[in-house]
Amino acid sequence: MSGEQRTRPMHGVLSPVVTPFDADLRPDPARFVRHCRWLLSQDVGLAVFGTNSEGNSLTTAEKIALLDTLVEAGLPPARMMPGTGTCALGDTVELTRHATKLGCGGVLMLPPFYYKGNSDEGLYRSYSEVIQRVGDDRLRIYLYHIPPVAQVPITLTLIERLLKEYPGTIAGVKDSSGDWANTKAMLDQFQPHGFDVFPGSESFLLPALRAGGAGCISATANVNPWPIARLAATWQQGDADAQQAGLDAVRGVFQSYVMIPALKAAIAHYGDDADWLTVRPPLVELDATQRADLVQRLDAVAFTMPGLAVAAR
Amino acid sequence: MSGEQRTRPMHGVLSPVVTPFDADLRPDPARFVRHCRWLLSQDVGLAVFGTNSEGNSLTTAEKIALLDTLVEAGLPPARMMPGTGTCALGDTVELTRHATKLGCGGVLMLPPFYYKGNSDEGLYRSYSEVIQRVGDDRLRIYLYHIPPVAQVPITLTLIERLLKEYPGTIAGVKDSSGDWANTKAMLDQFQPHGFDVFPGSESFLLPALRAGGAGCISATANVNPWPIARLAATWQQGDADAQQAGLDAVRGVFQSYVMIPALKAAIAHYGDDADWLTVRPPLVELDATQRADLVQRLDAVAFTMPGLAVAAR
Repeated sequence: MSGEQRTRPMHGVLSPVVTPFDADLRPDPARFVRHCRWLLSQDVGLAVFGTNSEGNSLTTAEKIALLDTLVEAGLPPARMMPGTGTCALGDTVELTRHATKLGCGGVLMLPPFYYKGNSDEGLYRSYSEVIQRVGDDRLRIYLYHIPPVAQVPITLTLIERLLKEYPGTIAGVKDSSGDWANTKAMLDQFQPHGFDVFPGSESFLLPALRAGGAGCISATANVNPWPIARLAATWQQGDADAQQAGLDAVRGVFQSYVMIPALKAAIAHYGDDADWLTVRPPLVELDATQRADLVQRLDAVAFTMPGLAVAAR
Repeated sequence: MSGEQRTRPMHGVLSPVVTPFDADLRPDPARFVRHCRWLLSQDVGLAVFGTNSEGNSLTTAEKIALLDTLVEAGLPPARMMPGTGTCALGDTVELTRHATKLGCGGVLMLPPFYYKGNSDEGLYRSYSEVIQRVGDDRLRIYLYHIPPVAQVPITLTLIERLLKEYPGTIAGVKDSSGDWANTKAMLDQFQPHGFDVFPGSESFLLPALRAGGAGCISATANVNPWPIARLAATWQQGDADAQQAGLDAVRGVFQSYVMIPALKAAIAHYGDDADWLTVRPPLVELDATQRADLVQRLDAVAFTMPGLAVAAR
């Protein structure tokens, strides 16, 4: 997979990178760069500003500044898939244009998510307006289907229409529905046309790869990157089902908590860096009891984050 | 009510003012000022950048520019209650600070609405951070409870805590739950303490006023302003129930369509100004058949928009 990733840098495993904040709730660029560098060292790509990045709690200016920081730090934009979909057309265009100019391998684009019950025609127009206004042949859009959070679904019909109209631009989808039947339908209908399907959790990584999928984009790749990337690289080996079971055990622990504060608590603990605990409202950090419980349960499944404490220095 | 409004400019009826766009989907400041001026002439206050304003499809810069335009045009900020709640703390603070400095009578503040299933503690921190960062004694916040759209509710417990901590700042609520039992609970529990409860529809105007409520903030006040304002001013008269029935008949017609394009279609028709039809994606304008049907049904309930065509010139 590593070899393949050099030619197909968006394939494999990506993580919606958690965003560190300082005590005044400002993004912390130095910690952000360090965590991104560590993820890349574990063969995990950078889906910065995703749901689990608290990406929707950042302003457009904050996202642009953080993305510039990563590129200036020498991290490869080809391995970046920033989230650029917002409620307002102008913000989505500005972010998407900026990411594309920087050479990002793609962007992960939520539909505008405030208004609910939209028609496919309305969502088609949303994406179409962005594509035309960005007006850059390098743009590669990964559609972001996350109905449990955004409450605005990306239907198969919408994908079909967008792919037909913008075949060079519509590059794939992250399916965070948690509904394997839906992921499978996307894989069957669109992956053969080079449209890359990423389930939004490593729980579906092995079945997705077996059905031709491109990898996965998963919150827990922030904390368990190498084991997930290893399955993506070796899924045709005999121990693949055992590997998948190991990933599921770790994910199961994190899913017992609110995901974002739990991810940050793990990074704070295993990286020995308490400043990572901070989240922006409306989220609340785990309390000391929850953190101790989390670590105990992770230790029980032999969880480690190798190299993190070193990377954090 | 007009007399009372001079001393209590936020009481009575307000409208989430629809936002006109030009053919390139840019906000149209001249049409916006004209419509706001007409609403004020009908005794309706300006809850600009609300849900039915497509407020969440506007960038922070667009909202600030439109608000400045209204004030520069000489419209009274004391009658303005702009929507300033966004997903990102920085945007909410910037907009709220600007509106407060301009002298707006209040702001209507959504909770951050991307992340779902938040604790009251997290939402409390969201509002608290904004209040402390704006740091302006003139700030008056009307909480915006609209679970069908935002999917992030403002509970009675949260209101109680915010009121206790920030009694001079937390000024009221717009309840767009559509659930009279909830509105009644807010009225019973908080209105006696000077916390103003506005149902999010004139369907509940008369019962709310009879229970001590402050008025209503309603989408259809964009098109039916004077009859709604008249009920707010004369609700103790004998014809109040008949007035309420008249309001319900008009609202019932609009509720048969997607609300925002239907409001704009009515303004376009009765104001003889087709440019008003434009909506931003993800919304879609009504087609010609729907528009003809809407007008036929409105004519059947003797609907008019007096003075609109003149105001539009």
